Amino acid sequence: MAGIYQRTLNLRAALRHLSPHSTFSSAATVRHSLVGPRSSFLPITTSQFGVCCRKLHAGADGHKLRSPAAAPDRLPFSRITQEDLDFFRKILPGRVITDPDLLESSNVDWLKSVRGSSELLLRPQTTEEVSQILKYCNSRNLAVNPQGGNTGLVGGSVPVYDEIILSTALMNNILTFDSISGILTCQAGCVLENLSLYLEEKDYIMPLDLGAKGSCHIGGNVATNAGGLRLLRYGSLHGTVLGLEVVLGDGQVLHCLATLRKDNTGYDLKQLFIGSEGTLGVITAVSILCPRKPKSVNVVFLGCETFEQLLKTFQLCRGMLGEILSAYEFLDSECMRLLNTHLKLPNPISDCPFYVVIETSGSDPKHDGEKLHNFLEEAMTSSLVADGTVATEDSKIKALWSMRERVTEALTHDGFTYKYDISLPVEQIYQLVTDMREHLGDRAKSVVGYGHVGDGNLHLNVTSPAKDPALLAAIEPFVYEWTARCHGSISAEHGLGLKKRNYIYYSKPSQAVALMGNIKAMLDPKGILNPYKTLPDNLK
Amino acid sequence: MAGIYQRTLNLRAALRHLSPHSTFSSAATVRHSLVGPRSSFLPITTSQFGVCCRKLHAGADGHKLRSPAAAPDRLPFSRITQEDLDFFRKILPGRVITDPDLLESSNVDWLKSVRGSSELLLRPQTTEEVSQILKYCNSRNLAVNPQGGNTGLVGGSVPVYDEIILSTALMNNILTFDSISGILTCQAGCVLENLSLYLEEKDYIMPLDLGAKGSCHIGGNVATNAGGLRLLRYGSLHGTVLGLEVVLGDGQVLHCLATLRKDNTGYDLKQLFIGSEGTLGVITAVSILCPRKPKSVNVVFLGCETFEQLLKTFQLCRGMLGEILSAYEFLDSECMRLLNTHLKLPNPISDCPFYVVIETSGSDPKHDGEKLHNFLEEAMTSSLVADGTVATEDSKIKALWSMRERVTEALTHDGFTYKYDISLPVEQIYQLVTDMREHLGDRAKSVVGYGHVGDGNLHLNVTSPAKDPALLAAIEPFVYEWTARCHGSISAEHGLGLKKRNYIYYSKPSQAVALMGNIKAMLDPKGILNPYKTLPDNLK
Repeated sequence: MAGIYQRTLNLRAALRHLSPHSTFSSAATVRHSLVGPRSSFLPITTSQFGVCCRKLHAGADGHKLRSPAAAPDRLPFSRITQEDLDFFRKILPGRVITDPDLLESSNVDWLKSVRGSSELLLRPQTTEEVSQILKYCNSRNLAVNPQGGNTGLVGGSVPVYDEIILSTALMNNILTFDSISGILTCQAGCVLENLSLYLEEKDYIMPLDLGAKGSCHIGGNVATNAGGLRLLRYGSLHGTVLGLEVVLGDGQVLHCLATLRKDNTGYDLKQLFIGSEGTLGVITAVSILCPRKPKSVNVVFLGCETFEQLLKTFQLCRGMLGEILSAYEFLDSECMRLLNTHLKLPNPISDCPFYVVIETSGSDPKHDGEKLHNFLEEAMTSSLVADGTVATEDSKIKALWSMRERVTEALTHDGFTYKYDISLPVEQIYQLVTDMREHLGDRAKSVVGYGHVGDGNLHLNVTSPAKDPALLAAIEPFVYEWTARCHGSISAEHGLGLKKRNYIYYSKPSQAVALMGNIKAMLDPKGILNPYKTLPDNLK
Repeated sequence: MAGIYQRTLNLRAALRHLSPHSTFSSAATVRHSLVGPRSSFLPITTSQFGVCCRKLHAGADGHKLRSPAAAPDRLPFSRITQEDLDFFRKILPGRVITDPDLLESSNVDWLKSVRGSSELLLRPQTTEEVSQILKYCNSRNLAVNPQGGNTGLVGGSVPVYDEIILSTALMNNILTFDSISGILTCQAGCVLENLSLYLEEKDYIMPLDLGAKGSCHIGGNVATNAGGLRLLRYGSLHGTVLGLEVVLGDGQVLHCLATLRKDNTGYDLKQLFIGSEGTLGVITAVSILCPRKPKSVNVVFLGCETFEQLLKTFQLCRGMLGEILSAYEFLDSECMRLLNTHLKLPNPISDCPFYVVIETSGSDPKHDGEKLHNFLEEAMTSSLVADGTVATEDSKIKALWSMRERVTEALTHDGFTYKYDISLPVEQIYQLVTDMREHLGDRAKSVVGYGHVGDGNLHLNVTSPAKDPALLAAIEPFVYEWTARCHGSISAEHGLGLKKRNYIYYSKPSQAVALMGNIKAMLDPKGILNPYKTLPDNLK
């Protein structure tokens, strides 16, 4: 009892900082610089990979029975000839890369879990160039892997075999910004963080934010329907993306780059490309609705004794923080252990089974402080919260957010990581972690759960000292079957890419998958766009 | 000067009601009952229509040169036989309507602008029944007109010829509601207002609200991608609809009724059906994310001397009201004249060229009141606002909202109304009204502009004593060409339906329209679903 009393005192002390008249610094941008560019996790050389890629694809592991995650056989696309190279060099002078060293980082994903063997990287600067490339590739039956920042987690952003890599890196111009409506249009290769910095000067922010912001491209974000940390507040890209310019497989340009909030003239074609992982067309430009930059941002880090209390705290804060709530993220004590062990990040509060990061963003620092104060009072009085701390200054806000944002990094130090990105009814998200832990027993090194409570999105991660096919066989299909029983999604925000494509039936009925196949066949009849990805092998 | 000074005093007096400690009643539900069921504007008998429907379709007017809005020739669908009736009576006992009197209100739209001559109305109760109906109709080549509340404005919700009317009226069950996530699932025929009332008891609201709420069905809202009064705050249905159950033209049921905020497993098929106006499938159930009910709602009615000041006021209130701003609607002085003349609604403030209705919705009455107070102080000090009044009690909130919501009703009393629903960059929305007024001179009785400033959505309406082909010829294609020059949309939220289908090229490039045609052909190869709607005649 004394312990709990003391914890409550700590929180009470923190609360004093939240008196109605205290000033909160604007910290909207602070979190952005927290996580370094993801390339810092990716070694420049990747000597651990062999030259032959087939057997090294995730889950293949040289076993006779090919894993559903392993690459299927190469499809009969053409091979690149000297004539092809001549053509590309003519239309993209100085932007045709064939040097294997320069191609290396584009052939391997940042998790170092899959790699292709492409011998050609093209760097167009304009939509017209993308159109010329695809028209040519379509006529020559050459497969193409569209690539943005290559920050994907499911093997969707790198070639599987020798697909031509079509990089959007040089398509990085901001086209227009309307400061009345907050509508931004830009080329697909703009880096998310650069767009954020550009907008902040104009008192706006991007409607999405992710750990990979320093590398990921907006085109890739849209192509994968990226979720991230602001979805709870600003909704999904299906709502915030207002227009797209897309080049189809045959080189035809689809001009749907509207800058209007409302447009009900015919079917909303752009929606098809949001989340299609580059398999239906190459997004070359994006129009997106940006929210105003909040004038006040606060972060709270709380500890709960049970997941049930964590959910009750969520309900309470949705009611009391209302329109200023901008994030409700969680991590479990196993995540905290990894943060302590591998990154030497100390727990800012006393040990608890569960931790929550709550962020508020609003237009009035005084009002936001009062709302937060009242919520924390109530959470303590009703014993929903065991301990907590409040960030009132930038450096502490940074430190608190890092407890959530650096879990992924801590996991990479813990061993080989099997990653799952599950959507479930929010009441059930932690039960999967508990069940998985019990199911695996001591076969796993760590089983951890963290993620976006507000969105019902669990990141379940299992580590082992090295790749372990027996462990993998114990995890899958257990995790997918569990998710399907609860009508969840086996990929909440990461997509299917190469690794998860054959698991689609756990979350989508066969008629729906068949219809997806028809759409693919209609838009890309030769199947040259990002082959082996998103759709299951039985459709191809 | 004295006049302006006095106006400012009025507003100052109103401001006193907004002192930080005054209490605001929750008025979230008040506005809902403002506008009666739209059926009150629709006469029970429609004797003004002849029996032959062809010549009475909008714009046809018996002229030799058929208007692009007129119905095309009947397509070679089968005619209903006794055998067909026997089949339907067997699967829908007591729910097969053939009495012409009972069919009357389903054959005519509520604007009384188009009517069909269907002789058969089916009222299924379950998805399975809808599936059986469509499977049968597809095999028999019988055309089907899916119908919700029949509140559409573009002739999309009634048959053009003898299509079978498939009503969702009896599919009105709420299926599930999760009070933690706020996710509702229900059958397509639930009336929007009934869903709102159901949710309000549970402390939630629907993310959309429209004048037709008392009649419109949620399935129809989704099928037409309805916008309405809350879009500014909660975004479009492409973001808030989480799942759909849809029956395709051949009777196949597409089960995509997910109740998850995030799901990136394959292409997001449900998006195709949002806004497709029943031409790609019949929506039978909807899953939708509902926001918490605000604890505090305030309404302000302001007058501005110029549209430029009205836009500056919008910018100011977006900054100062921030996250609590839930509506920024406008009407011009011509609208006010019609409200005074036809509905005897007095102007609550002094005469101004432009009027604004601002609504705030938040979680803390005291904070909301303070924000509103500060905003109004600033708007007055900077002379953006000429006059204004603030509603602090339910009845006054009602009265202020009616100034905006009853403009449509006032127009019906002014004469025959030509209605346009235009999306434009917000800076340009009123210029179209000014230009149209000048262009038409005294050929029009009234030219009025109102709408959703926050969404860049203008409702431009032109009245004349009676239908006037010469006036119509002066309005169109002028209005569409004007809109196209500004890269606007010729239908922001009303859709294309029958009346606007051939104008699609003003807002969409031909490749995009061709692709829409391919999607239609893929999903409904026989074209039995809501024929003659949405897509232009040249695609059929």
